[in-house]
Amino acid sequence: MIKKISIIGSGNVATHLGLALKQCGITIQEIISRNKTSGFNLAKKLNCVFNNNFKNLLKTDLIIICVQDDNIKQVIDNLPNIAMVHTSGSTNLNVFGNRENTGVLYPIQTLNKEIQTEFNCIPICIEANNETFKKKLIQLTNKISNTVFYLNSLQRQNMHLAAVIASNFSNFCYLIAKKHLDNYQINFSLLAPLIKETANNITKSDPIINQTGPAKRGDKKTINKHIEMIKNKNYKKIYKLLSQNILEEYEK
Amino acid sequence: MIKKISIIGSGNVATHLGLALKQCGITIQEIISRNKTSGFNLAKKLNCVFNNNFKNLLKTDLIIICVQDDNIKQVIDNLPNIAMVHTSGSTNLNVFGNRENTGVLYPIQTLNKEIQTEFNCIPICIEANNETFKKKLIQLTNKISNTVFYLNSLQRQNMHLAAVIASNFSNFCYLIAKKHLDNYQINFSLLAPLIKETANNITKSDPIINQTGPAKRGDKKTINKHIEMIKNKNYKKIYKLLSQNILEEYEK
Repeated sequence: MIKKISIIGSGNVATHLGLALKQCGITIQEIISRNKTSGFNLAKKLNCVFNNNFKNLLKTDLIIICVQDDNIKQVIDNLPNIAMVHTSGSTNLNVFGNRENTGVLYPIQTLNKEIQTEFNCIPICIEANNETFKKKLIQLTNKISNTVFYLNSLQRQNMHLAAVIASNFSNFCYLIAKKHLDNYQINFSLLAPLIKETANNITKSDPIINQTGPAKRGDKKTINKHIEMIKNKNYKKIYKLLSQNILEEYEK
Repeated sequence: MIKKISIIGSGNVATHLGLALKQCGITIQEIISRNKTSGFNLAKKLNCVFNNNFKNLLKTDLIIICVQDDNIKQVIDNLPNIAMVHTSGSTNLNVFGNRENTGVLYPIQTLNKEIQTEFNCIPICIEANNETFKKKLIQLTNKISNTVFYLNSLQRQNMHLAAVIASNFSNFCYLIAKKHLDNYQINFSLLAPLIKETANNITKSDPIINQTGPAKRGDKKTINKHIEMIKNKNYKKIYKLLSQNILEEYEK
């Protein structure tokens, strides 16, 4: 059973994961981070040792690598042969090469260390290179999340792609809407109930049924008027492309 | 004071608005609708008269026109000179011509008569062609919504445009994400906590701060991998355009 964990990184994922694990009685042994300020602060929050490099690492049951995707390989190369997981949605399990016990623990959420979150509501994807380690990882993850499920690397990468489209792109739509309203001194917060209802509706029925608006209705008059009204060239292009695609989706 | 109201239309807006008004003690006199089935059903729910045409309309304090944008003008032409409002985000107040007491009552929400909603949480935009009628409309609308505010036609049309971008386009992103996951037999509901959190974050901070993901980080390796992974040509185009715009937004 995994009882003691060290975490590499001190960013958003490291912070939320570390706090969630500590709350469930897991001992966080050590934070290893290049960033002295955030690393030291996180170690303080977790009441553990802070280490600025990979020398003299404490003995531990598992290392969780919470660094940017591009740095994962380099971090692995600096580690002794110990059980380890990364937390990246888009990085293949084979990044670990031939090491003994390796896996992935990918929380499907947009995490910001400044914003509190109910960690146990976040679905977590697990992957592992062997059955025994897989069982250990699932046992551990079940402590911090109500929704733990197994995906292989290809499935997880596609889940990550879908997450980018559903979350990052919808936030960018909010950003465009806000900028547009700012031009007319209209308060963006008036859109909050609409935005939240649209998101909540996905648990009531399929997005294909929930779709509303001029493009869904085939109302080209309103679409053309809107395109004229948008001043920013790039946003105009986005409005055109998305409306055209919605039109085509429902013309079928 | 407005005490008795007739509603033209029996769709999503007519249904929710009618029920909200009735709950606040307003008398709904009559439902006028081309659609006999839905018109009759709504009249039954509201315990009022159903009329299939514009003849012999009952005397009333206000008519609320809840029909598709393209039909508003034609409906107005069939009405006697009585106080009236439409509920369209994108239709100018001048659609009423020279009539005496005219206005707009636009609820900023995606309404579906099959799905219950807390009507008093929906912001409502008001417009009117004179001060006295404006006061009456605000007095009425304050009974059914906690957030009532005045926008002129230009502002309201821009609010409607922003609502399309923030709501209809983000729902279309959910639709694309779901279709992508369906290809891999992955359950779309796993994205629900992420989608809801992304929407909720708009009330915690600005979308420009909330933006996350590969494009925000300038991670072109992941972006290119994702573009390769998307099979649908149209969705590929959308992924490219949105990522490129996010990249540019944060390179500034």
